[in-house]
Amino acid sequence: MGAFRSIAIVGAGLVGSGWAIVFARSGASVSVYDADAAIRGSVLDRIEASLEEMRAVGLVEAVAPVLARITVADTLADAVRDADYVQESVFERTDVKTAISLEIDASMRPDAVVGSSSSGIPASAFTEGCRNRARFLIAHPVNPPHLVPLVELVPAPWTDPAIVPVLRAEMEAAGQVAIVVNREIEGFILNRLQGALLNEAWALYESGYASAADIDATVAHGLGLRWSFMGPFETIDLNAPGGVADYARRLGPLYHSVALDRTAPRPWSDDLVARVETERRALLPQADLAARRAWRDARLMRLVAHKRQTAKEAGP
Amino acid sequence: MGAFRSIAIVGAGLVGSGWAIVFARSGASVSVYDADAAIRGSVLDRIEASLEEMRAVGLVEAVAPVLARITVADTLADAVRDADYVQESVFERTDVKTAISLEIDASMRPDAVVGSSSSGIPASAFTEGCRNRARFLIAHPVNPPHLVPLVELVPAPWTDPAIVPVLRAEMEAAGQVAIVVNREIEGFILNRLQGALLNEAWALYESGYASAADIDATVAHGLGLRWSFMGPFETIDLNAPGGVADYARRLGPLYHSVALDRTAPRPWSDDLVARVETERRALLPQADLAARRAWRDARLMRLVAHKRQTAKEAGP
Repeated sequence: MGAFRSIAIVGAGLVGSGWAIVFARSGASVSVYDADAAIRGSVLDRIEASLEEMRAVGLVEAVAPVLARITVADTLADAVRDADYVQESVFERTDVKTAISLEIDASMRPDAVVGSSSSGIPASAFTEGCRNRARFLIAHPVNPPHLVPLVELVPAPWTDPAIVPVLRAEMEAAGQVAIVVNREIEGFILNRLQGALLNEAWALYESGYASAADIDATVAHGLGLRWSFMGPFETIDLNAPGGVADYARRLGPLYHSVALDRTAPRPWSDDLVARVETERRALLPQADLAARRAWRDARLMRLVAHKRQTAKEAGP
Repeated sequence: MGAFRSIAIVGAGLVGSGWAIVFARSGASVSVYDADAAIRGSVLDRIEASLEEMRAVGLVEAVAPVLARITVADTLADAVRDADYVQESVFERTDVKTAISLEIDASMRPDAVVGSSSSGIPASAFTEGCRNRARFLIAHPVNPPHLVPLVELVPAPWTDPAIVPVLRAEMEAAGQVAIVVNREIEGFILNRLQGALLNEAWALYESGYASAADIDATVAHGLGLRWSFMGPFETIDLNAPGGVADYARRLGPLYHSVALDRTAPRPWSDDLVARVETERRALLPQADLAARRAWRDARLMRLVAHKRQTAKEAGP
């Protein structure tokens, strides 16, 4: 557990309930609020079910002690009043984020920190009017946060720079891996990297070089293996005898040439999307999407358990 | 085992010896040739060491029967004469590939298939003069091929289209995952996808948005997890309630906007490369590169064992 002992979760859908698990698992007291009474009523059951699944693969030792640290608050003010840290995960629309930020601002301790799970809207778009706006920033997780550890911290221009390393340390203490995006940029880091690969994938498909299934296989059975435990820079650093500079000398010109093919990017057209949709629905009918998502989450959970196990074997 | 019972491996470095393991593991007889007598002399010891490591994590049941199916040939002609399939993995330079292809061509059965491990040079650049050029194509693995299953099949314009599905089926029978690149393109599919993500990573680093270590962590602890068992299209298909078309409607404009930021790609400059090199060497000194590569291969081997295990739990 870090120095943040008391956590408020605002918005208790899939993302918010995942965050509740992250902080409760690390020993903090977690108070959960959602404006929707039905969500408030169901959140503890959903969290308990997730914790049971995690226990089955060894990701938590026992369910009851974690669950006991989570309470549901009847009002936002009750949830937030004593919190060291507030994680906000409401619907991603600027007006909704603005309203909830003002509400948090009105009840928070002036020394608390507020992180938004926003995956695209920067904090500068919805926290300007907050009295404590220097305490707000983005803390964007990958879903679900209790399984995928990565969180992007993105300060607004008016965020107090001192809180960034503090939140980074607190996230690490809670078992997450925090990265810092030094200033706001559309898509932050993760979705820009994803977008670059996706844009190339769609372009290759559009020009008829390969099927969507074969492009998927290229990643799932090739490119993606190293990337599940090493990043792109470390991968190339180890892929040439002399390290990254040696690699850049050998392969930089190829990658530059590939980029020069893509200087007139086209949107994913309706026709193109329809063709991929047709191929995907032949592989996975619409009615099976939900079951496949459950399969994905089970795979993800086992992969995370595998990574924890193998990470104990230290490298140089 | 597929229909290819007799395999020739031409070029027995890291890649070629990995291929020998792939085919011998599946039950085929493998004849290995390398022009370098020292490599011919050491290849069986290297293969045995790799097989022992694989056995330790359950990737092969026993070493001796696999090893017994591999012999070393004294001449290229001896290796390829009776082969159903020849996998060529010599040094990647057009003149070297051309010379070896002509040599294979002179000794092969006219109904054999020849796949080159070339990672960048297309088959049309070095097989035109071969009598049996319709039997040649690219079969580009990810290193090492006995651990990472993906192989890209890329026919030249004169490759007999009928052999592509045959080799695909044979590769699958040998435990690999083969994808078909319908026609030649620079970088094939895998390195183009890698290049797209790398170019964005270098550009983000160059503009000071994040450290190389944080960009690496974004992939290794976030983006790369799903990609180690699902491709990019399946990932987005499951990431919106209505599937891939729904996802494209919601996020296509963001990714198009990200692409519009990158219409004037710059080469990875010497100065930029030097800065990343400095950051990497502070994290991992030059002297530790080899040990880190051994760590990577051990992680890769365990990941592959983990994937085999979890893949048995069928999804929809």
